[in-house]
Amino acid sequence: MQPLRIGVAGLGTVGAGVIKILSERQERLALAAGRPFEIAAVSARDPNKQRGLDLGKARWVNDARELAAAQDIDLVIELIGGAEGVARELVEAALKSGKHVVTANKALVAAHGVTLARLAEAGKVALNFEAAVAGGIPVIKTLREGLVGNQIESISGILNGTCNYILTEMEKTGRDFADVLKDAQALGYAEADPSFDVGGIDAAHKLAILASLAFGAEVDFANVSAEGIERITATDIRFAREFGYKIKLLGIASKSAAGVEQRVHPALVSEKTPLARVNGVFNAVAIRADRAGLLVLEGRGAGEGPTASAVISDVVDVARGVVLPPFILPVSSLRKPGRLAGERREGAYYLRLHAADRAGSMAEITRALAQASVSIERIVQRGDEDGESKGRLPVVFVTHKTDEGTMQKALALLAEHEDVAGDPLMIRIVDAESR
Amino acid sequence: MQPLRIGVAGLGTVGAGVIKILSERQERLALAAGRPFEIAAVSARDPNKQRGLDLGKARWVNDARELAAAQDIDLVIELIGGAEGVARELVEAALKSGKHVVTANKALVAAHGVTLARLAEAGKVALNFEAAVAGGIPVIKTLREGLVGNQIESISGILNGTCNYILTEMEKTGRDFADVLKDAQALGYAEADPSFDVGGIDAAHKLAILASLAFGAEVDFANVSAEGIERITATDIRFAREFGYKIKLLGIASKSAAGVEQRVHPALVSEKTPLARVNGVFNAVAIRADRAGLLVLEGRGAGEGPTASAVISDVVDVARGVVLPPFILPVSSLRKPGRLAGERREGAYYLRLHAADRAGSMAEITRALAQASVSIERIVQRGDEDGESKGRLPVVFVTHKTDEGTMQKALALLAEHEDVAGDPLMIRIVDAESR
Repeated sequence: MQPLRIGVAGLGTVGAGVIKILSERQERLALAAGRPFEIAAVSARDPNKQRGLDLGKARWVNDARELAAAQDIDLVIELIGGAEGVARELVEAALKSGKHVVTANKALVAAHGVTLARLAEAGKVALNFEAAVAGGIPVIKTLREGLVGNQIESISGILNGTCNYILTEMEKTGRDFADVLKDAQALGYAEADPSFDVGGIDAAHKLAILASLAFGAEVDFANVSAEGIERITATDIRFAREFGYKIKLLGIASKSAAGVEQRVHPALVSEKTPLARVNGVFNAVAIRADRAGLLVLEGRGAGEGPTASAVISDVVDVARGVVLPPFILPVSSLRKPGRLAGERREGAYYLRLHAADRAGSMAEITRALAQASVSIERIVQRGDEDGESKGRLPVVFVTHKTDEGTMQKALALLAEHEDVAGDPLMIRIVDAESR
Repeated sequence: MQPLRIGVAGLGTVGAGVIKILSERQERLALAAGRPFEIAAVSARDPNKQRGLDLGKARWVNDARELAAAQDIDLVIELIGGAEGVARELVEAALKSGKHVVTANKALVAAHGVTLARLAEAGKVALNFEAAVAGGIPVIKTLREGLVGNQIESISGILNGTCNYILTEMEKTGRDFADVLKDAQALGYAEADPSFDVGGIDAAHKLAILASLAFGAEVDFANVSAEGIERITATDIRFAREFGYKIKLLGIASKSAAGVEQRVHPALVSEKTPLARVNGVFNAVAIRADRAGLLVLEGRGAGEGPTASAVISDVVDVARGVVLPPFILPVSSLRKPGRLAGERREGAYYLRLHAADRAGSMAEITRALAQASVSIERIVQRGDEDGESKGRLPVVFVTHKTDEGTMQKALALLAEHEDVAGDPLMIRIVDAESR
C-alpha cells in the first residue's frame, strides 16, 4: 500500500519525539496502520542545529508554509505553536489543499477551531489535535469516539501541569507561590514568562476544546472565564487541608438550558475525590457521562514523550483511513456559543482576608457578610503563628451554599471595609468531580 | 448514505441499553457517524417478554445464529455470553459471512480471540470488544489507538467490580468475606454462583485480552494464573491498613525477555497509589507506556449504561468505516504465547498465619522462615482482640524482597509446621502501579 507521506513543521522537543517514534517503530506502526509512513519533508527554524535525528530522505523546507502546497505530502504535522502567524497560515493552507492536519496547538484550535473544522470538512480531510489537550491522556479520542453514545453532563480537569506542580509543591513544603514558581522555572516546569500557565490561559484553551467536544457546541474560547493561581498562599493551602480539601486549578465545563458554562479557576476540592489526588505535573480529566457514568483519566499532560505519543495516535488514525468530523458533529450541527452568566453558579465559598488587628474588627466583618446575605458555616481565626501579621490577622470563612452574584457583592463590600486589610480572596468550593 | 443494518443477539440489560441509545439518539449518532443506523433484527430467549423497547421495524429471529446468514444485516452485536455454544457459533459464522461483529463477551474473546481475529481479517470486517473489558472505560481503544506509538511496559488493573465492592465493604465495615458476599448478592452486585467473580476468573479473562493488546501477543487465557479473594479476612485488611496498604484484586501483565506474565491475585498496594483509591464497584486500569508514561483510567466496569456505552462506541466505529486488526497487529505478526515462570516474581510478601498459643511457638515459626531463606522486615502479633482465637493467635509477617519460589517453599514448610494452625495465607505486595 502507498505510504502516508508526512511533512513535519517544527522540530523542537515534541517534533523530535515524533520523528524518533516514526523512525524507530516504523515496522510495527506500518503493521498496525496497514500502510507505511514516510517523512517526506521537515521544516524548522534552524536547519543546522544538531538534533541527532534520523530524518531519512526527508527534504528540508525553509518556510513551513511550503508544506501546505507540496505535492509529495499527504499529512502535515504542525508543531510550531501560536494562534496566529505561520502556524495558522500553514494549517489553513494545508486543509484547503486537501491535506490532513495533525496539530498539538491548543491556542490555534481554541481560537480558530470552527473555521479549521469547516475547512477540514470541505476537503474531506482529518484535523486531529489529541496532543493539544492533556498530552498523553487520550481525552479527545475518548470524547470523540469512546463516549459517542453518551450525553456529557460535565467535564472538569486539571489541565495545566505547571500549576499543579506549583500547588503540590506549596502544599508539600509550605512555601509560598513566588518562591515555588522560581524553582519550577529553574527545573523547566514553568516558562520564563509564566503568565500563560499560572494565569489559567493555557488551561482555558484546553477547556474550550473539551467543552466543544463534550457539548456539541462551537469552540468558544472568548467565553471561558479564567482566573489563575497567583493569589493562592501557603496559608490558603493549609486552611484548605484543615477543612479536608486540596486547592487545584480546575477547568470546569457544564451545560444547562442557558448554554455552556466554561470556567478556569482555583478550587477547593474534597480530598476524597479523584482529582484531589492528582499531584505534581500530572493532568487529569473527570467526565460525567449519562450512560458510562463517571470516567476519570489521569496521566502526563506535557513533555516530549506524552505529547509525541498523542501526535502519533492522530497520525496512525489518518493512515488507517479514519477521518472524523473534528468536533464530532459536522460544523453546521454544532450549537452556537451560549453562555451561562457567571453569577448563576451556586455553591459554597472559601473566603480569606486579613482583619485589622483591633478590638471589634471581626464583629464588623461578620456583620458586613450577614448584611450581604452570605451565611457562614465556619470561621477560623488564628493568632499570629508566623509572626508575619504586621497588625493584620488572617481569617478564613467557609460559606453555606450561595450564588456567585451574592458572593461578588460581598467581596466588593469587604474590599472597601475599614476593618479589612487588602483585597480578600475568594476560592470556589467544588462538589465532587464536577461543578 | 446507506444505513448500517444491525442485528442484536441478546436483549438482557445490556442489549436493552444498546437499543435505547440507538433509538433515542439516532439523529445525533447518524451525524457523528456520517450514516444512519437501523436495527434490522433482534433475537432473545423470550420474544414475548415486556421490555419497553422501541424495536422499530426490527424482525424477530428465533435462533440467534440466523443473524449470521441474514442478507439484511451488516453488523451483529453479540450479547449472549459464554465462550462456547450459540455465542461462539454466531460470532464465527457472522465473521465468515463478512459481517462486522461487536461483542461484550470476554470469555469468548479470551478463549478464541486469535481464531476470531483471523476470521475478521480474512473477511476484512471489524471484531470489536470494548465492552468486554472494564465496561465504560475505553481501555481497548486506548491500547489499540491512543497508545499505538508506545511500547507498553506493564498494565495492571482492578478488573472485577464485584471483588472490589466486597473488599471495599470489608474495609469499611470490618465484616468478613462471606458476610459481605451475601449482601453483595442481595444487592445484585454478585451472582448467585459468585465463583467466577470472586475466584478471579472473570478478571483473568479481561487481563488476557489486555495483555494481548499491550504486548502484541496472541491471547493466552490458559496461561493466566488466577487466585481469588475468598481467603482474605477482615483481619488481613486491618493489618494491611496499619502498614499503609489496601488489599485489591489486581490483574497484572508485564513483559520480559522470557515472555508475557499474566497474574490475577489479591495484592497489597500502597495507599498512595491511584489503584488503592478505587473503591466500590469501580474498575481502573494503570498502563505504563514508554512514551506516554503512566496512564490511569478509572470508571464503571459493569452495568447497563457503561456496557452499552462501550458497545455503541464500537458500533459507531464500524459505521464510520474504521476496521482495525482486532489485536492491533495482524494475527500473523502476533507473538506466540510465552510465559514467565511464576517463581520469577521478585517482591515483598505479606504472610498471615495462626500460631499455636503456646510458649515458644513464635520462635519456632520465625526459625522456620529463616531456614527457608525468607528475611523478615516486620512481625506483628496481637493478643486475642476479638476473643476468637480458640488457642491460635493471628501473626503477620512482612518479608523483605524475595523471589516467589522461595516464598512458596516457605509456605509449604509452614503449612506442615506443628506450631502453625491451618493454612497460612500469602499476599503479594505490589510496588507502585505496576508489578
